[in-house]
Amino acid sequence: MPQERDLEAVKRAKSRFPLLEPIARRWSPRAFRDDPVEPEKLGSLLEAARWAPSSFNEQPWRFLVAVRRDDPEAFEKLSSCLLEGNRSWAGRAPVLLLTVAKTYFGDDPTRKNRHAWHDVGLATAQMVLQAAALGLSTHLMAGFDRDRARELLAIPDGYEPVAVMAVGYRGDPETLPPDLRERETAPRARKPLEEIAFGGRFGAPLSLRPSVEVEEEG
Amino acid sequence: MPQERDLEAVKRAKSRFPLLEPIARRWSPRAFRDDPVEPEKLGSLLEAARWAPSSFNEQPWRFLVAVRRDDPEAFEKLSSCLLEGNRSWAGRAPVLLLTVAKTYFGDDPTRKNRHAWHDVGLATAQMVLQAAALGLSTHLMAGFDRDRARELLAIPDGYEPVAVMAVGYRGDPETLPPDLRERETAPRARKPLEEIAFGGRFGAPLSLRPSVEVEEEG
Repeated sequence: MPQERDLEAVKRAKSRFPLLEPIARRWSPRAFRDDPVEPEKLGSLLEAARWAPSSFNEQPWRFLVAVRRDDPEAFEKLSSCLLEGNRSWAGRAPVLLLTVAKTYFGDDPTRKNRHAWHDVGLATAQMVLQAAALGLSTHLMAGFDRDRARELLAIPDGYEPVAVMAVGYRGDPETLPPDLRERETAPRARKPLEEIAFGGRFGAPLSLRPSVEVEEEG
Repeated sequence: MPQERDLEAVKRAKSRFPLLEPIARRWSPRAFRDDPVEPEKLGSLLEAARWAPSSFNEQPWRFLVAVRRDDPEAFEKLSSCLLEGNRSWAGRAPVLLLTVAKTYFGDDPTRKNRHAWHDVGLATAQMVLQAAALGLSTHLMAGFDRDRARELLAIPDGYEPVAVMAVGYRGDPETLPPDLRERETAPRARKPLEEIAFGGRFGAPLSLRPSVEVEEEG
């Protein structure tokens, strides 16, 4: 991979303000090396998720981990739930992981947790950034057959499959088919900050210039 | 705050595996100092959220920021949406921020984005960890009047208020009323890893012991 450094530079987040290194560096590749993920690194990923905040500390997240070399059958089951466009590349990652949301509070299925998916998102982001900090890459996928996942992986009532994540060491973009290779090496794009961050009400501009008070305090 | 160091130790995540420092250190205080948040640090928080991954790169997150000193009226509006139990302490934070989910893809309100709240969670976690990296504390709240927020803050149809976040520098627990003071200094609790992380199917144990292959590769 002669353009390895170039690709990291191309993919790096463009920000007007300093960013935590794993946030700046993280992106979602499709090419993965065949190398396994060290079990202790998987442990760090899961612990990172575990310590996320959640509504009423319900911790509505569950994670099903399928390691290709250790349990090819489980890996194949989860891989078979992916839509074809994802399976073609994600099936070659060393680890697939399904995130699952518990949709009610405590032991009472009638007490719906409106923030279940949101909180799974909080935990998943901590996992994704922990991975980036350890030199691992991740790629989250919404495109999979939820009913099939529920059945094949024995997801109980009251729990919902949310996303599938590929985990591994990033590979050579040249191993991808041409259309995916092009996306793999394209710069990342985001809406301008002004379109997502507002002042006191929706749509109002937000000023991020240093205020007089801040300057006075040095 | 003579017990400052002790409190950081009490609150630190207990993990069997190494954690990214802001993940290990982050917790959700209720006592905030009166000091303002530097605008450039707010900028880093919002950029951190901006660069999160999302389904189809829809970026369904919006953030309404209310800075108490700069715009007391906007701050009071958002603060007035909090349930009383939250308003008592969060109303004293220097910044309140409302996270909002866009619930459909692109320009077509009929194309529902099932992952909207999840992806707001991803972006919010990046913001929370960026804050921790900058020495700031955050506290996410689900307890607020969504209808009131929608009306007072002009949230359009197709967008949903998700959570309110207090942002600031952590304060002295002694400034809190006795019941909250006790919670402020109690250790953080999480389910054991075994209850949230499974092997190939729901409920199956996951082995995180180093495999022979990994040992062979050094």
